[in-house]
Amino acid sequence: MAARNAFYAQSGGVTAVINASACGVLETARQYPDRIGTVYAGRNGIVGALTEDLIDTGQESAEAIAALRHTPSGAFGSCRYKLKGLEENRAQYERLIEVFRAHDIGYFFYNGGGDSADTCLKVSQLSEKLGYPLQAVHIPKTVDNDLPITDCCPGFGSVAKYIAVSVREASFDVRSMAATSTCIFVLEVMGRHAGWIAAAGGLASDERHELALVILFPEQVFDPERFLRAVDEKVRSHGYCSVVVSEGIRGADGRFVAESGSRDVFGHARLGGVAPVIADLIKERLGYKYHWAVADYLQRAARHIASRTDVEQAYAVGKAGVEMALKGLSAVMPAIVRTSDSPYRWEITAASLAEVANVEKKMPLEFISADGFGITEACRRYLRPLIEGEDYPPYAGGLPDYVTLCNVAVPKKLAASFSV
Amino acid sequence: MAARNAFYAQSGGVTAVINASACGVLETARQYPDRIGTVYAGRNGIVGALTEDLIDTGQESAEAIAALRHTPSGAFGSCRYKLKGLEENRAQYERLIEVFRAHDIGYFFYNGGGDSADTCLKVSQLSEKLGYPLQAVHIPKTVDNDLPITDCCPGFGSVAKYIAVSVREASFDVRSMAATSTCIFVLEVMGRHAGWIAAAGGLASDERHELALVILFPEQVFDPERFLRAVDEKVRSHGYCSVVVSEGIRGADGRFVAESGSRDVFGHARLGGVAPVIADLIKERLGYKYHWAVADYLQRAARHIASRTDVEQAYAVGKAGVEMALKGLSAVMPAIVRTSDSPYRWEITAASLAEVANVEKKMPLEFISADGFGITEACRRYLRPLIEGEDYPPYAGGLPDYVTLCNVAVPKKLAASFSV
Repeated sequence: MAARNAFYAQSGGVTAVINASACGVLETARQYPDRIGTVYAGRNGIVGALTEDLIDTGQESAEAIAALRHTPSGAFGSCRYKLKGLEENRAQYERLIEVFRAHDIGYFFYNGGGDSADTCLKVSQLSEKLGYPLQAVHIPKTVDNDLPITDCCPGFGSVAKYIAVSVREASFDVRSMAATSTCIFVLEVMGRHAGWIAAAGGLASDERHELALVILFPEQVFDPERFLRAVDEKVRSHGYCSVVVSEGIRGADGRFVAESGSRDVFGHARLGGVAPVIADLIKERLGYKYHWAVADYLQRAARHIASRTDVEQAYAVGKAGVEMALKGLSAVMPAIVRTSDSPYRWEITAASLAEVANVEKKMPLEFISADGFGITEACRRYLRPLIEGEDYPPYAGGLPDYVTLCNVAVPKKLAASFSV
Repeated sequence: MAARNAFYAQSGGVTAVINASACGVLETARQYPDRIGTVYAGRNGIVGALTEDLIDTGQESAEAIAALRHTPSGAFGSCRYKLKGLEENRAQYERLIEVFRAHDIGYFFYNGGGDSADTCLKVSQLSEKLGYPLQAVHIPKTVDNDLPITDCCPGFGSVAKYIAVSVREASFDVRSMAATSTCIFVLEVMGRHAGWIAAAGGLASDERHELALVILFPEQVFDPERFLRAVDEKVRSHGYCSVVVSEGIRGADGRFVAESGSRDVFGHARLGGVAPVIADLIKERLGYKYHWAVADYLQRAARHIASRTDVEQAYAVGKAGVEMALKGLSAVMPAIVRTSDSPYRWEITAASLAEVANVEKKMPLEFISADGFGITEACRRYLRPLIEGEDYPPYAGGLPDYVTLCNVAVPKKLAASFSV
């Protein structure tokens, strides 16, 4: 059987370790030159496939590919572009197969979250219907940690570590200042629907580093009075309070608290920025001086403080994805199975995409403490191994030496263009 | 000559490395038991001296003291409390001498910025007038980098490194997303009066990592039209733009831009948060989708990514402070003298506090590029060595293992209390 080419694309919000998955895919594919020809990457994700804008990863040196392991962001460009349903827009899927056929692509690796798992499944189904032989494998990635079956999602562990480290550091800071100045610190973290990242802030406090924390989860309806009491209690007992607030918290009216706070210069409700709303509320009602921060992209790009566990898993799912495809599997996702909490042990199995697509894993409610403002021991047991270990990138001149690839375009073969 | 005790206090905003200076003071003092008895630390800074709330650092183990070198924040508590002028409130200064006399304190080490340099000078002058023998030494610390004579201020290099690293990482992120989604990233950094920290963001882009950056300095009047043109140009040429904005930028009317943007739920002008104002402006005028972050305390507490140069200098000024006092110097500050840019070399000399107090060092205007939105080669030459080197703290369970001291109180000896 002649070697066939492969297609790889990154989808959705990028992470500190999605390139480590790319590294796993590319390095593994290069080990099987008799089976896999060239890996073509989609420029800006699946859009690159639709528009036949492919990148020839064969032009990149082994050193550049290896450097992907320690480089955050999406090296080939990612996209926020959700393919519609097969019935609604069959043309998109047919176009994908057409491009794959033109470039003799026999392997499809799609690196993303829930939406891309769904796309990957549909591509697999259509290729079968059309009699086009294709191994379609979804490589999991999402800081939201909401994919089913897999114990955790590559990308999440590093955000969790960044937030836990930052909350510890900022809490030490505000604790120092509290006697005569600022005694409240509010940090806004990602998580529109689930409190996984906010929960990670809870790891900042442990037996040897007890800190006064209040966490606001999107799973809990925001109750200002109960919240203010919790904050006031921390200030009275510890002299200060650090608040970790998920961007997605909502009030009893179902509206995002972030939207309730202020209007911009044009009178529009301001989107984003729940931290200043919470900080203002504390100042107004309790009179405490505050500082607030919004981590935003910093949290998901922070490769400098990535979790070693996360980097290893991100690489491993990329590698396993290629191996599964070579075994002839399709419509699968390499999933992480936890076999032991302590010592932490994990392995990888193939999960059927039919069971992954369109299923969102929620954070278990038993991970939130009874008062609603903290995490439980079960939550700590789950989270701890995911932030374990450091994996520092190389530095040059005081800064991480991240790679930017050449991203040489593959000559187009199709006459027709396709607009997205 | 019998050994006399020493007093050490931390002042103003804490940093990632002020405890490294404390470590330098304490470890050096312990090397001279025949000259220095116990080092007493002020609980919550100079307030601890005024209220006779002293901490017996002799109770801390050598391991705990050593761990200060890698622990951010102020281990004894800091304060924002400026002593008034000698004429206005001589009672405060006399109280200090009274407390020092009661505890046989012969050395005064005050670790802070410009205000504390001034206080240290006055304490030295008054002790002389009152015939109370005291060696008063100011240990420099400020992320604002605005102390004169010294080439740089301990604390600044680590903030600079954090901002440079974060800007590089977030710029890689937004670059990946720009084709179909977010193409603007705005990061707000500290710096009310001077653009040192904003300038450090410029280091993120260099020959091997060219990034599309626009920097807004407080030294430049904010001109929305020119700014929007600069941003639009970057998006057109690079596909995205990262904006680093100093919290202290002002418009032509002299008002902080941060205050011009929005009103809180009560209709008050919101303080802080220039990043969302800038992001909204870009969206409104250019239509680009944005993300924004506010680093706030995260930047000055980020010991996990501290500059090794900064840690070494912070320790060295603490050590040198004790050695200067032992040589009989008073009303001095250990200042860093740069003897070579590349390779970077520095040494420490004693600067007279009379020349330090009440003098604010500005960022040279030739550090800002002609268009006002970037940094010059002279600026890079100055900044580069300050972020050089990493000095990772030890980790346990995936988190930095920072020390919290016992902070045992010294029994009071004075009958009178003193309110601050």
